[in-house]
Amino acid sequence: MDLLNEIKTRGTMVDGAIQNLMPIGEPDELYRAMRYLFDAGGKRLRPAALILSTEAVGGNPQDVIPAATAVELVHNFTLIHDDIMDADNLRRGLPAVHVKWGISGAILAGDTLYSKSFHILSKTNADAERMVECLTLMSITCTEICEGQWTDISFEKRNDVSEAEYMEMVKKKTAILYAASCKMGAILGSGTPAQAQALWDFGRLTGVGFQIYDDVLDLVTPEDVLGKIRGSDLMEGKQTLIAIHARDSNVKLDVFGKRDAAREEIDDALKMLEDSGSIDYARTTAHNFVAEGKAKLSILPESKAKDILLALADYMIERKF
Amino acid sequence: MDLLNEIKTRGTMVDGAIQNLMPIGEPDELYRAMRYLFDAGGKRLRPAALILSTEAVGGNPQDVIPAATAVELVHNFTLIHDDIMDADNLRRGLPAVHVKWGISGAILAGDTLYSKSFHILSKTNADAERMVECLTLMSITCTEICEGQWTDISFEKRNDVSEAEYMEMVKKKTAILYAASCKMGAILGSGTPAQAQALWDFGRLTGVGFQIYDDVLDLVTPEDVLGKIRGSDLMEGKQTLIAIHARDSNVKLDVFGKRDAAREEIDDALKMLEDSGSIDYARTTAHNFVAEGKAKLSILPESKAKDILLALADYMIERKF
Repeated sequence: MDLLNEIKTRGTMVDGAIQNLMPIGEPDELYRAMRYLFDAGGKRLRPAALILSTEAVGGNPQDVIPAATAVELVHNFTLIHDDIMDADNLRRGLPAVHVKWGISGAILAGDTLYSKSFHILSKTNADAERMVECLTLMSITCTEICEGQWTDISFEKRNDVSEAEYMEMVKKKTAILYAASCKMGAILGSGTPAQAQALWDFGRLTGVGFQIYDDVLDLVTPEDVLGKIRGSDLMEGKQTLIAIHARDSNVKLDVFGKRDAAREEIDDALKMLEDSGSIDYARTTAHNFVAEGKAKLSILPESKAKDILLALADYMIERKF
Repeated sequence: MDLLNEIKTRGTMVDGAIQNLMPIGEPDELYRAMRYLFDAGGKRLRPAALILSTEAVGGNPQDVIPAATAVELVHNFTLIHDDIMDADNLRRGLPAVHVKWGISGAILAGDTLYSKSFHILSKTNADAERMVECLTLMSITCTEICEGQWTDISFEKRNDVSEAEYMEMVKKKTAILYAASCKMGAILGSGTPAQAQALWDFGRLTGVGFQIYDDVLDLVTPEDVLGKIRGSDLMEGKQTLIAIHARDSNVKLDVFGKRDAAREEIDDALKMLEDSGSIDYARTTAHNFVAEGKAKLSILPESKAKDILLALADYMIERKF
């Protein structure tokens, strides 16, 4: 199976629908700001997970394209507002929305995407009961993403973040949108409640694994592959599972929070984190989450879509960037 | 009839429900930021309009309290983000949310209120068809509010804004949430489509009247009553119906956009705007909108709630601040 091609096939369905679902309206500059990140690309992992979940419970992928578009737009909305908060000026190799349209423009572009997502979701072909379930799920999901982002920001002022707190933050900030995408796909595909729950758990567990593995990649990936400075999480003093494990193992990292650290210092820190087993610990934890997530799909009938979802889970912790 | 008491009675229903519908959750500081403006007060005009609309079509006000709370929280969300964009540091006599919790905190508090509003709306006692209609209406409404805010900001860079453009902006930025509140009240109260449409039009037209009259008050109200500097719209160079009428009448206002104008200059401008008929024009226009809005309610059966709605419409252009 060519996993990336299978994902791309589903992503293309969303790409083809955006012009119809969210055309450039008035004021046109607002709509250009809203479409900017979507048009800039992205892997479309969340729409793909939603569409594959529909297929895995026997539903028709064509019916859920608006819902798949909606979760991608929610993702875009979080990126736009997060980039303001984190003062990140680059996204997908382009100037961030707030760099191009100012802080006010970026706040409004994000806000409008937010409400458009609900509106586009409501255009999905489904009976009213399932639609209420999906719209409610979307609202709860967005609330939890915001809670996760707030917690992540609050971590910046602390050096006593526990592993449990980190896990809870990652679940909300990153994993919950995967979980909701999978569950919505199941609901809209007329899956059973047990199937919807299994796909929710699958999205949540593999989503956590995805984020933990992301923290590993930040340290071990060559910079030309990573596209940003290696060890940036360390230099920013970010609370990651690796940093928490190191602290609990009494590893003293001089580069932690040192924004002007030299490459040699990062290399030294990497060596220390390898010796302390912190990197292996994060890698193993990510693997365990993904394995647990994959096991949840055992209740689904065999299908090509199920195989792709399982391969997508592996991809989350095997990718190179 | 004691109009303000009737509004307060409905507002109190929402005040009494907030602790149950949106308790201080985790992270508690996020929830405190979200509750801050709500707890600071406000007239609760939108929740009152929603509840009265339910009553006016024969529905039970107790059934729509979550929906009424939701529209107030959407209003709070727009205030929080608007205050960031407009760099307004005071709101309801208190430091704005972004002053107390920083820009990031205010962005997130607004975002979370946004999704909570949809979630709380979904808790309203209604069949799935009506619920989908309300959730969809809310999403379209929020999109239009954002479009109106974007347009309003874009007016700052222009001096050729037409009356039609101003009207369209006010409709979206201010009136649409009144329209949606009234229509949701009708839908949830099991009103007919014609009743829902009439209440939508009522909210839209009186909402436009409300905003135009607000611009008049900014100029003519004594400062100790207004609670802010008189003529602030003029000094900020804001495009209002008054400013547009004056420009079209070839009135040259030296204070327009002059942020350090003295009180005497404002008084001179006020005199010129009275002589040119610009203030009377705005006042008359506001009255006409309200009269047109009230006429829409003729299809409703006689009831106390209808009388209160009609009185509320008059209040919008007769209030002193």
